[in-house]
Amino acid sequence: MKKNHPVNEAAMIPEITAKLCASYRQGEAVSYLDDQDLPQRELVIEVLEQMLELLFPGYSGCVGFRRDSLDFTTGELLSRVRHALARQLGRALCYNCRVEQHREESCGADDMPKCRARAEEMADAFLRKLPAIREMLLLDCQAALDGDPATRSKDEIILAYPGFKAIAIHRLAHELYTAKVPLVPRIMSEYAHTMTGIDINPGATIGRSFFIDHGTGVVIGETAVLGDNVKLYQGVTLGALSFPKDGCGHLIKGTKRHPNLEDNVTVYAGATILGDVTIAHHSVIGGNVWLTDSIPEPYSRVVFTPAEMSIRIRKNNLPYDPLLFAGANI
Amino acid sequence: MKKNHPVNEAAMIPEITAKLCASYRQGEAVSYLDDQDLPQRELVIEVLEQMLELLFPGYSGCVGFRRDSLDFTTGELLSRVRHALARQLGRALCYNCRVEQHREESCGADDMPKCRARAEEMADAFLRKLPAIREMLLLDCQAALDGDPATRSKDEIILAYPGFKAIAIHRLAHELYTAKVPLVPRIMSEYAHTMTGIDINPGATIGRSFFIDHGTGVVIGETAVLGDNVKLYQGVTLGALSFPKDGCGHLIKGTKRHPNLEDNVTVYAGATILGDVTIAHHSVIGGNVWLTDSIPEPYSRVVFTPAEMSIRIRKNNLPYDPLLFAGANI
Amino acid sequence: MKKNHPVNEAAMIPEITAKLCASYRQGEAVSYLDDQDLPQRELVIEVLEQMLELLFPGYSGCVGFRRDSLDFTTGELLSRVRHALARQLGRALCYNCRVEQHREESCGADDMPKCRARAEEMADAFLRKLPAIREMLLLDCQAALDGDPATRSKDEIILAYPGFKAIAIHRLAHELYTAKVPLVPRIMSEYAHTMTGIDINPGATIGRSFFIDHGTGVVIGETAVLGDNVKLYQGVTLGALSFPKDGCGHLIKGTKRHPNLEDNVTVYAGATILGDVTIAHHSVIGGNVWLTDSIPEPYSRVVFTPAEMSIRIRKNNLPYDPLLFAGANI
Repeated sequence: MKKNHPVNEAAMIPEITAKLCASYRQGEAVSYLDDQDLPQRELVIEVLEQMLELLFPGYSGCVGFRRDSLDFTTGELLSRVRHALARQLGRALCYNCRVEQHREESCGADDMPKCRARAEEMADAFLRKLPAIREMLLLDCQAALDGDPATRSKDEIILAYPGFKAIAIHRLAHELYTAKVPLVPRIMSEYAHTMTGIDINPGATIGRSFFIDHGTGVVIGETAVLGDNVKLYQGVTLGALSFPKDGCGHLIKGTKRHPNLEDNVTVYAGATILGDVTIAHHSVIGGNVWLTDSIPEPYSRVVFTPAEMSIRIRKNNLPYDPLLFAGANI
Repeated sequence: MKKNHPVNEAAMIPEITAKLCASYRQGEAVSYLDDQDLPQRELVIEVLEQMLELLFPGYSGCVGFRRDSLDFTTGELLSRVRHALARQLGRALCYNCRVEQHREESCGADDMPKCRARAEEMADAFLRKLPAIREMLLLDCQAALDGDPATRSKDEIILAYPGFKAIAIHRLAHELYTAKVPLVPRIMSEYAHTMTGIDINPGATIGRSFFIDHGTGVVIGETAVLGDNVKLYQGVTLGALSFPKDGCGHLIKGTKRHPNLEDNVTVYAGATILGDVTIAHHSVIGGNVWLTDSIPEPYSRVVFTPAEMSIRIRKNNLPYDPLLFAGANI
Repeated sequence: MKKNHPVNEAAMIPEITAKLCASYRQGEAVSYLDDQDLPQRELVIEVLEQMLELLFPGYSGCVGFRRDSLDFTTGELLSRVRHALARQLGRALCYNCRVEQHREESCGADDMPKCRARAEEMADAFLRKLPAIREMLLLDCQAALDGDPATRSKDEIILAYPGFKAIAIHRLAHELYTAKVPLVPRIMSEYAHTMTGIDINPGATIGRSFFIDHGTGVVIGETAVLGDNVKLYQGVTLGALSFPKDGCGHLIKGTKRHPNLEDNVTVYAGATILGDVTIAHHSVIGGNVWLTDSIPEPYSRVVFTPAEMSIRIRKNNLPYDPLLFAGANI
């Protein structure tokens, strides 16, 4: 540190700046300059929260919905959402357009208007689905109320339940994923992941009346398909078993590689189901089960035989012997 | 998407608005209108953070506490907390009053003043407990210092430890739960869950000198009862084993269904204890143990016999064989 | 609650204030007064986010970087970061200075200028490393692209991947840890923990091309050492096996107690590796494996034999029998 003479210090800002900028300039698709495309994470999250407000008006406490002006407040918010969403989708489409054409610069005079017009169409098509998404989420809310003995009311679920927040955001992100919007759905699902610890890839297909309790550590992969009335607990992974590679050793993207859970399947805490397997309807997968095969028979109950345990009684109050903790300590 | 003619686009906002508003209006307790009751999540969190500031002045860095004006700054903040908390408790009580009377509208001229007066009483009774809660938290802080070899100081714990933040919020939320305040305690505990990955139901009873290390994935159920000097590691679940239902097949809410941990019990990472069982004092539950029975003998040590493992050596640098990963890959 | 007579209510604020202030005043290092030292968490996080912006300009969407003014925008942001960082490091050093000298008050006229000058040197030395840290992170980004079949682009990784955010913050925090800055590195790493569910102690040494997928529940201990091309999945713990204590029964801080993973080691979801053990290069540790021994042979593959499972078929649609869930329910 003594090497930092005053002279060096004065030159420091320009020196580091020059190095950083040189690196930015050679970056292939790892620097984002000119502010022309790439969705803006914070604004995506803002419009996402506004859509949640439209789905369940008043719950965030940020917008004052009143019965006598309900249509006006709703229409006004919807209109704001439409413009903000179209802008972010437009950036995402311009981004895609640039990447697919291997251009360094954003959409020019030719493409930009096309991308923007398409973004507005997509935003409108998406917003038309909001009432149906609300109906789906009301079923999810009922499923949470039916499934959790600690729940007191639907209001509590909408206000505070992480599993409900995760599925609400997923149902929105999944629509954009299906419409092949780049980047935006993943920004949304990772926001849900941050807020709830629940990691649902926007590609996952999830049926009606879905409930996740507690939720921390849940992972649902991109090509998972879940039927109606599925219930998951914390720490459940619906993952891939192996990743096929092409002749060059590169991962093949987009193949079906995650589980299928038929209607009325329940998976208890910490269970792991891997690969493109199918769990037949009304089956129950017990806690901590590790499963890489299909369960073809409906109404199956899969429980693991708990590991053998040893119980020993220590002499009162002796100091802990490190060996005593072998295999037990973190 | 091509179906979106300009004409449709103009009509889009009114159309969707009408559908959404129709849905809001028929919602039984799933729309929150008129801004009269229901606590406001963001304001609940704001007052919660202010209470943490009162418990450990200066740590957030947002309020400038100084020795020479300590009483004034404290008194001023306390007074602000009192009003903000009373307002949120008032909303929660009005909410409850509406729900219990199956009314559509909020408290009217008769009930509102009663709810508000009761909320002020509750806020005052709660704030009187702050000094005692601070004493409890100082013990929790000491427990963290004694239990974690990576900790350098109490300041580090208060500034940055998720386990400490979780127990601090829990001790506040639990007081409100005990006073039967609806919604507010759960909003607080889910805020802690979001920030820390630790999910403690506000109903859980937790003794002195409690320490959670790392913490992500910890779940402590509503009717769990923990003694003094309990230590938990990440991924520990203290959950329910089964949910009794009434004659109509509905969950019975509120029964005792979670574990009891006596004084000086330690539970290592990933262990799961389910049901209304009791772990005798000074017992150690090893990592990943799955336990649905009581451990009646004090000073017990419960470790699981690790699953048999197979170790094979691959030939150098051969490409991965997918089968090789069977049961191993996500 | 009826005991709250109006008289008491008027006196409530002064009473509670007096009790709280009395407690603050006797607190040994558990109250932070006078606003002289102790880093300010929110400002530390703000400068951390600005450093991430410098590493990947434009991704947050908050700063408008343009090609024609790239150097100016970068230099200006760098200069702001330098001052903000130096201020927080100065507070941390003053804090340390006070604690080491067991003084109640912050640095006085003698020490404060020394701490501040040292903080500026440290900030400069740290910022000089930003270009190299960016190079490291570009390798991490490539590793994510190569390792995750759901990834579409590097932009998606930088914009949204929690594993990438966690390693980016870790590489910054680790530099400050190495320079022996107190408190600030831990504030940074716990911010990453909150945002991602990934808990990397700032002391951990991590090689090039590191990738964590999903990430929730990952714990990497203070003295863990990871080589190049290491891949971890969600729920992996690299922890300590036991904590040696000194003659007085106090934990000995700072000893080497966490695992070493050599180059090209992959650890699948939920695996736990404990103690100062070494996993030889190119080895694969399967999901849920519990390991407290070294794996000395390179190219080893360690998988656990899944616990025996029982599968039973329930009679159609019979109500759930609680016993049926024994060991399976949460």
